[in-house]
Order: sequence, then structure tokens, then C-alpha cells
Amino acid sequence: MAMKQEALLKKVYEINDLNKALALLSWDKEVNMPPGGITSRIQQMTTLGRLAHQMATSTEMGDLIEAAAAELNGAGYDSNEASLIRELRRSYKDATKLPEEFVVRATEITGQAHGFWVKARANNDFAVFQPWLAEIIGLCQEQAELYGYEDEKYDALLDKYERDMKTAEVRAIFDAVKTELVPLRQVIEERGTAVNDNFLHQHYEIDKQKQFARYAAAAIGYDFNRGHLGTVVHPFATSFSRDDARITTRWNPDFLNPALFGTLHESGHAMYEQGTHPDLARTPLARGTSLGIHESQSRMMENMVGRNRGFWRTHYPVLQAFFPAQLGEHSAEDFYRAINKTMPSYIRVEADELTYNFHIILRFELEQAMLNGDLQAQDLPAAWNAKFEELLGIVPPTDTVGCLQDVHWSRVYFGYFPTYALGNLYAAQLFETAVAQNPAITTELEQGRTTSLLAWMRENIHQHGKKFTPRELIQRATGRPLSHEPFMRYVTQKFSDIYGL
Amino acid sequence: MAMKQEALLKKVYEINDLNKALALLSWDKEVNMPPGGITSRIQQMTTLGRLAHQMATSTEMGDLIEAAAAELNGAGYDSNEASLIRELRRSYKDATKLPEEFVVRATEITGQAHGFWVKARANNDFAVFQPWLAEIIGLCQEQAELYGYEDEKYDALLDKYERDMKTAEVRAIFDAVKTELVPLRQVIEERGTAVNDNFLHQHYEIDKQKQFARYAAAAIGYDFNRGHLGTVVHPFATSFSRDDARITTRWNPDFLNPALFGTLHESGHAMYEQGTHPDLARTPLARGTSLGIHESQSRMMENMVGRNRGFWRTHYPVLQAFFPAQLGEHSAEDFYRAINKTMPSYIRVEADELTYNFHIILRFELEQAMLNGDLQAQDLPAAWNAKFEELLGIVPPTDTVGCLQDVHWSRVYFGYFPTYALGNLYAAQLFETAVAQNPAITTELEQGRTTSLLAWMRENIHQHGKKFTPRELIQRATGRPLSHEPFMRYVTQKFSDIYGL
Repeated sequence: MAMKQEALLKKVYEINDLNKALALLSWDKEVNMPPGGITSRIQQMTTLGRLAHQMATSTEMGDLIEAAAAELNGAGYDSNEASLIRELRRSYKDATKLPEEFVVRATEITGQAHGFWVKARANNDFAVFQPWLAEIIGLCQEQAELYGYEDEKYDALLDKYERDMKTAEVRAIFDAVKTELVPLRQVIEERGTAVNDNFLHQHYEIDKQKQFARYAAAAIGYDFNRGHLGTVVHPFATSFSRDDARITTRWNPDFLNPALFGTLHESGHAMYEQGTHPDLARTPLARGTSLGIHESQSRMMENMVGRNRGFWRTHYPVLQAFFPAQLGEHSAEDFYRAINKTMPSYIRVEADELTYNFHIILRFELEQAMLNGDLQAQDLPAAWNAKFEELLGIVPPTDTVGCLQDVHWSRVYFGYFPTYALGNLYAAQLFETAVAQNPAITTELEQGRTTSLLAWMRENIHQHGKKFTPRELIQRATGRPLSHEPFMRYVTQKFSDIYGL
Repeated sequence: MAMKQEALLKKVYEINDLNKALALLSWDKEVNMPPGGITSRIQQMTTLGRLAHQMATSTEMGDLIEAAAAELNGAGYDSNEASLIRELRRSYKDATKLPEEFVVRATEITGQAHGFWVKARANNDFAVFQPWLAEIIGLCQEQAELYGYEDEKYDALLDKYERDMKTAEVRAIFDAVKTELVPLRQVIEERGTAVNDNFLHQHYEIDKQKQFARYAAAAIGYDFNRGHLGTVVHPFATSFSRDDARITTRWNPDFLNPALFGTLHESGHAMYEQGTHPDLARTPLARGTSLGIHESQSRMMENMVGRNRGFWRTHYPVLQAFFPAQLGEHSAEDFYRAINKTMPSYIRVEADELTYNFHIILRFELEQAMLNGDLQAQDLPAAWNAKFEELLGIVPPTDTVGCLQDVHWSRVYFGYFPTYALGNLYAAQLFETAVAQNPAITTELEQGRTTSLLAWMRENIHQHGKKFTPRELIQRATGRPLSHEPFMRYVTQKFSDIYGL
């Protein structure tokens, strides 16, 4: 290995190990830490975060990157070496764009804003949060200027989560989704046959839920030899290496769906990390390339696999054996229809596969309006409710289940939301291509297996880690740029069938 | 706060936070990590260990210590500031005594030696381990020279675990224990009334064991709001701060004692850490002062509280309620006698309160002989068995349950063993003094409570953390140096009663 490259890797590994220790401090905080431990835990996380940041932004690091870059010679664009240099240059540049003064101020403001958001949501009192939202909007505007952009302000923020994606592209795609999805939703509402999902809302013993969740996660291909399932309040997936990619779940004793589909969702995230190429280990390339692509893997496992009719033909009898009293009288087809019931609802995280994107499109549009100064903080509730009615046909009865429901706007997270819907669209396009290239995927799914599907994802998505941008990756994997069409084909076919249209 | 002191603390906090993250990486490795995660976990631990070591041994750190020391002015010996300087100077000096070449070589040798020890123990084949033991002895001799000593070689190693304690002192105390304990053991064997503990060896459901272990740990004063009980193969306690001091246990479905008394033992360790003074937080003083004093707290909770007659008068009915089938027909007195049954046995970690020290004295004497060149590796099994018979009246049938049983001699851990027995002696002396100063301790114990006992330990031991040496601490707390007498008084009284002598 070239000498400069070796010196760079040594430092990269060191920073990686610090960041992974930080990730463990954070995971443990949610999963195991006793309440008393919080103060010292925050101190420890702050120290490790600062050390890692200092190393990553030092002039020594800058010099190491450029020295190794000069030594690259013929290494092609696709090589690990060249990809690493691209990623390091990019993050080095980004990390030095925000002055410390701004970071400190933003941390202070959001630290306070979060508390007021909690209070406002609990008491359905938007006024309490309103001045803080105004501050957050200001911070987002400032941050966009600091990062810089060519076309639209929103580009600068979107880019943090979905590298090189432009607001205009997302807007075009979302508009197309909207145009086709609104009528589909309406026709289901008006003409669809009724779906009964009452039996999912019964008492399901948590111990058995845990056993079945593990069974289901293993069935879709999550590797427990390199994984771990923990219990938390707010589920997430995290990885300390490709060989230790963990999932978390919360357990609801009176509703089967949250833990079951939550586990499949987080497994999809973790399987992406488990599938990164071993040669990328300990570098910033050993992770998913963007939030959108990451979400494509979780949504695919949750919905396209986990809410697939064939999949349950195989696994439903096992679930019935765990819960004979609750499910004994309901067929696999009943279950398939129940878990795919669609209905407009107020809360994003509880939304079904068909209506979920509406919740995102709404936020995407409101965020842009706030960022561009077209929507003031005090006008948010009215704007939210109007858009909600336009897209979903209902109006939230309170701001608590309306514009106050998500944590994101109490942080400087503008630009994050669209990645959820992009994930659904990527997922459909990847799935459609995979099935076209390997029909065995469909046959296997009918038998409850994902071997070939997972192999295709490993080959075309997972192994590359963060080597390529989302745009590059979707082009390489499917031969064309992201489009709304595969998603629309998928939901139209699936829901027309279920609702007998 | 003085400026130099502040600069020093900033660095001390940083090193502490790194070391605590390292401790979490290590804890998680035993409690949660999936098997696949081991390689990257070792890399992460190595990186954090190296960074912390580099910071702690940097010339910058040396300068910070001396600059702050010069600024101490009038701060008395007992002050936190002066105590911190003493501890930092000492560990700074120690850390620079072992050349990197030695550390690397020792790590390589013990890395291999451990594997051969595992094999030798599994196959009862001492010859497989013998050449590696010879290497380890050599490393210990070398290490003793590197650390340096005034009187005896063994002093240099003992000092690592029991600061400022001399081999000669320990020898005098252990000899006195031996002189009095051997006849007591023999008289119990010859004239004691029989004790039945068969009913402890039944099936005890692990879920109920877990519930009762938590109940018992809370009953002796372990604070779960600042603690956590995890499951592992080899139990230990660890702390990430005084407000997050964790215990671990292993569960045996067919024997009640290991998990129950193991939990009380580890709780004792963790309660020591939970009791360090908040002002010492994030410094190397916020921890137990030595392995021996640490062990005094765990053995006190395991034996003097956990095997106390009055304690079980209160808590035994609760245990019976968990296990009516197993314990319904046995009285609290039966239980008290059963958990205090004494009998010579081969395995140290399974030894009872009375015979435990013999296992340590034997190792202490053999370690010195090996270190001084008076005992060669190949002669260990014979020497072990001879001493075993002298002290315990039985001879191990195999080396697996003899000289191969402990992991310590596959590492460079000579000097560690004596601290286990010192713990028993410190415990008895502290307990005797505490009871003399506050008779309420006895009354409370009769009612199953430890409030006053814990308050006394907090005041006299816990809060001081590592400010004082074990010698200083025992003198301050009990008004005299360590003696074997309280321990002998305690076991003579307790076992004479149980065995009707």
C-alpha cells in the first residue's frame, strides 16, 4: 500500500474507532443506562465528539488527505481509494464550514427549543413553541448560507442528508406522486371494499412478541451473529461495525404492528450496514450512503417484504402458533389485508404505506416556505391544516397531532424529512429492477424467503457503502435516475387488488 | 479555582471520559456484543486505550501536573487537590516505567499463553502450559525490576494492586491467619454437627432468581437508579461514573447460591463506587482505592450481611414465596446454616467464607517462590498439591481443579491474589469498628436493613475514593493498622455457633 495512503488510513481508523465508541455511548444511553447516569454520559459523549471532531478537522488531517490524493495516480473513480478521498475531502470541507460560534449558538437554542416543543406538544399550545420555531427557522436560513448553494436555499440543507440531490428534482418527483396518489387514495376511500384490522388490536403477550420479532428478523435475513435486538422508547438502528449492527424496538402489549413491523424496518437498516464490503471497514465509507437510500432498505423490508402476501403465507402459521387465541380464527389472507389497511391518519409514524408519502410531501413544502420566508412561524398551524386537508382529506383536531407532532423542527433538521419519502421511491425502483433481473426473488418471497433479494441488494447497494452518491448508486443499480413510476405501479397494483378496484 | 488546577482538570476529565468509554466498550463486549463483533471491538478498545495512554503519559500532562502542584500552596494532605496531585504523579511515574517494547512483548506472550492455559485446563495436561508459565514467570521477574522495589521483588508487583503494601506485612498477617485458622477448620471437621445444604441444589427458575437477586441487591442498598444488572459468563462490577455503577451475574438453574451471593458480592463493589464523593467525579480519585479495599466491600455484603442470620430472618420469607416448592419445608435457620456450610473444596471461587483464605495464602506463597526462582514451572503441580494438603487436608485429584484452575497465571498478574484475602480481613476490621461505634448497625441487620452500616462505610471509606492509600484508610477508619484478629474473632464466633463447638 502506498505510504501516504497508509498514514491517512491510520488516522481514519482512529477517528472511526472514536466515533464508534461514541455511537456505543449513545446506544447504551437508550438501551441500558440507568436514569442517574445521564449527566456523566453527556460529558463523555461531548468529550469523544470533540476529540473526533478535532482530529477530523485538523490541518494535519487536511494535509494527510491531500498527500494521499496526490499518490492516487491511476486509481479509478470506482476504487475504494479514490472513493475514500472524495468522501474525506467532502466531509473535511463541510466540517470547516460551520464556525464554532454558530455551532455553540445552535446547540444552545435547540437545547432550549426542545424543552418548549415538548411542553407545547403536551399541552396543545403552539404559542409556547412559536418564538422558538422562529429562532430555528433563522438558524436554518443561516446554516444554508454557511453551507452555500447554487440554485435554491433548501439545496444546502437537503444536501446534508441526501448528497447532491437538488430540491427541484425532489419537487418534480413529489409533485408527480401527489398528482397520481391523491386520486388513488380517493377512489379507495369511495369504492374500496372494507378491510377489518380489529384483531390486530388485542392483547399480545410481549414475551411472545419478542420471540416472534426475532424469528421474523432472522427470516428476512438479519444476521443475529452480527446483531442484537434491544428495547427502547424511540426505536432506531445503529452499527459499531459491519459485524455489530444493532436494532431496537418498543413493545406495545395491545397492538401487534408497532414492534413487528418496527423490527423489520430497523432490520432493513441494519442489514444494509451488515452488507457493506469488509474492505471498507473502519472508514467513513463503511455505512449507508444517504438517509434516503438507507430508508429504502428499511421500507423495503418493512413493506415490500414484511407486508407481502406470499411472505405471510409461509410465516403466518408460526405467528398463529404463538398467538392461537388472537389469530386462530383469522386466515393468512385476513392478516395480509389487515396489515395493509390504508386510511388517512394524523400521525406520520403511524401512517400506512399508501398515505405515508403525503405526510412527507406536506412537510417538504412547508419547510421550503419557512426557509424562503414565505411562511412565518405563527402561520404554520393554519398552513399545516390546509395542506393536510388537501392531501389527506381530513383536518387535525389539535396541533399536538398536527404541526407539533415531530421532533425535527425543534432541531436544525430542515431537509431531513424528504429522505423518508425518497426511501419509499428508491425502494420501489430497486425492487422492480431486482425482480426483473432475477425472477427467483418473487418465487422465493412466495415461500417466505429473501435470499436472492438480499443477494441483489448486497451486490448492487450494500457492498458499496458510501462510495457513491445516491444518484450514482440508483443509476448504476437500475440503469436510470430516480422516478416516481415504480412506486406508483407498486401501490396501484397492490392496493387495487386489496381493495377490489 | 486556580488557573493551573483548572487546566489540569480539563485534561484529567478528558482522559477520564476516554477511559470510561473504554470501560463501556469492555462491559458491552461481555453483556451485549454479538460474537461477530469481537474483531472490531478489540480494534476500538486498542485505539481508545492508546489515546488515553498517550494523553496520560505525554510531557504536556507531566507539565500540567507539576504546574498545578506548584500552585497548591496551603492545600492540606487531605484536600482533594493535593490528593489528586499525589495520585497523578504516582500514575504518571508508573506509566512511564514500562518500555513499550516490554508491553508489546508481554501482550504477545500472554495472548498465546492464555490459549495454551485454556487447552491445558480442558485436558488436564499441565505440560502444555508449563513452558508458557515459565515465560510468564520471566515476565513477572522482569516487570518487578522495571517497577523497582526496596525490600523484596514481590513488593513491586503487590504495589500495583495494593498501593504501598509490603510483602513482609502481608506475610506476617497471613501466617497468623494460617496458625489460627488451620486448627479451627480441623476442629469443625472433627467435632462439628452436620449441616445440610442439599436443598440449595435444586431447580430454581432463572426468572425468579433474577427477580429475587434484584430484590436482595436493593435490600442491601444497591441503588438501581444509578445501577444496572446484566448477565455474563464471568461476573464483574464496573462503573462509568458514580451514578452509573453496574453489576453482572451468571445464572445457574440448579443451584441457588452462585447468582444470589454473586449479585450481593458485585453489589458491594458497585456500592463503593456509588458512594465516592461527587466532588471527585471525572478524576482518577473517583474509584476504590485498591483491590483489597474494594474486595472488603464486596465480601462484607456477600458474607457479613448476605450470610447473616438476622438478615435472613427478614428476607427469607420473601425468598420462600418465590420458591415455595424448594424452600417451603426449610426454616430460616436451616437456610442460614446451609448457606454457611464450610467444607474443604478444590475451587477457589466456590470456597466458603472460612476456607477461602487458604486458597489465597497458598497462591501467595507459590507466587513468591516462583518469582524468587525458588520454584520452577515444572515443579508447580507438586508444590501446589503439597500445600493444599497442608492447609485444607485434601489433595486435588487433577491439575484442572488444582494449579490450572485460575486465569491469573496465564497473565502477568502476580501480586493480584493476596488482595482477595486482604479484602476479607479489611472487611472484618471495618465491620467490627463500625458496629462498635454504632450499635444500631446490629439492630438493623437483625431486621434485614443496612442503612447505618452503609452510612458508616460511605463516611469512612466510600466517599474518599482513591484519595488515601489502603494503609491510610484503614488507620483513619479503625484507628489501627490491618490485623488478622477481627477476622479470626468473627469466623471463630460465627462458625463455633453454627457447628455447635
